[in-house]
Amino acid sequence: MQMPTQGRVDPLVSGVRERWDGQGLTGDPWPFMAICSVSRLHQILGKALDTELKKLHLSRTAYFLLTTLALITGGRARLSTLGRIVLLHPTTVKLTVVELERAGLVKRTPHPKDRRATLVGITESGMERVRAANEALEAATEGPLAALAGEYEDLFEALQPTRLAVGDVEL
Amino acid sequence: MQMPTQGRVDPLVSGVRERWDGQGLTGDPWPFMAICSVSRLHQILGKALDTELKKLHLSRTAYFLLTTLALITGGRARLSTLGRIVLLHPTTVKLTVVELERAGLVKRTPHPKDRRATLVGITESGMERVRAANEALEAATEGPLAALAGEYEDLFEALQPTRLAVGDVEL
Repeated sequence: MQMPTQGRVDPLVSGVRERWDGQGLTGDPWPFMAICSVSRLHQILGKALDTELKKLHLSRTAYFLLTTLALITGGRARLSTLGRIVLLHPTTVKLTVVELERAGLVKRTPHPKDRRATLVGITESGMERVRAANEALEAATEGPLAALAGEYEDLFEALQPTRLAVGDVEL
Repeated sequence: MQMPTQGRVDPLVSGVRERWDGQGLTGDPWPFMAICSVSRLHQILGKALDTELKKLHLSRTAYFLLTTLALITGGRARLSTLGRIVLLHPTTVKLTVVELERAGLVKRTPHPKDRRATLVGITESGMERVRAANEALEAATEGPLAALAGEYEDLFEALQPTRLAVGDVEL
C-alpha cells in the first residue's frame, strides 16, 4: 500500500461526486463514497498503528485483545467471549492468545466450572504493555497518529451515530 | 465474526471511558476508542457489503476497482495507477483484475507507449455491473446497509476531517 502524499489531491480520485453522472453512473455516489471513506481510513490508521505497535512487539490484533482484557473486571474472560467482543474470528483470537502467552502477557487457565472452556487472563507484564501501547499512540510524533493527536474524541463521536445505527455496541 | 445484536449493549465492552482509570490504565481512552470505532465499523460494513455484492458475483475489492475505473475519464488506467488509487497491494489488484477480466468486466491491453505497463479498461458489461452494484447498495432492505440508507452522505462528511488530517485524498 502506498500512502498518498499529505494534502495532495489525486486528480484521478478527486471529484467523485461531480464525475458520477458524467461518467454514466446511476443512483447516488454517497454509499460508494462513504464506504470508501471508512475503508481508506481503516487502511491508513491500520498501517500507522502497525508501525507504532511494532516498536512494542505487538500486532494490531494483540493490541486490541490485550487492551480489551485490561478493561474487563478481573482482567480475564473466556476465549470465546473475547473473540465475540472484538469481532474477530475464533481462530485469529486463539493464535494471537498463544503468541501473547508466549510473550508472558496473558495466561490461559482451564475454566473452573466448564471443562471445555478456556479462560484468558492478563498478567502484570501484560498490563504494563497495555499502558505503554496506549501512551505511545497518544504520544506519536509523526505520521497519521501524530496528525490525530487531540482529535480522537471527535473521531469517536463522529462515528458513534453510524456505529449505533448498524447495531454495534455502545463502547 | 459474530454480529452484535441490534441495539444490545454488551456489558463487557460498554463503559470503556468509565473503566479506563478504574482498571489501572493510564493516559487517555480516546485513541483506543476511536481506533476501535473505525475498525468495528469497517468490519460490520465490510461483512454487509460482501453479502450484498455476492449476489452480483463481485468481491469487495472487485467492487472498489470496478467503480473506480468507471469514474476515470476513458474508463481505463494503468494497473499500477489503479492499485495506488485504491490503496491496495499490487498483487491483490492484479489477481482481482484477472478475475474481472475472466468475467468480461474489464479488458487488459498493453500500454501503447510503455511496453512494461498494462492498461485496464472497463467494458460495457463492467459498467452495467457497476451501476447494478451501486444501486443495490442504496436499495438494501435489511441489515447494516438498510440501516444506513439516507445516512451515507452524513457518514462521508463525518469522516472527511479525519481523512484529510491524516493525508488522504479529497475524493
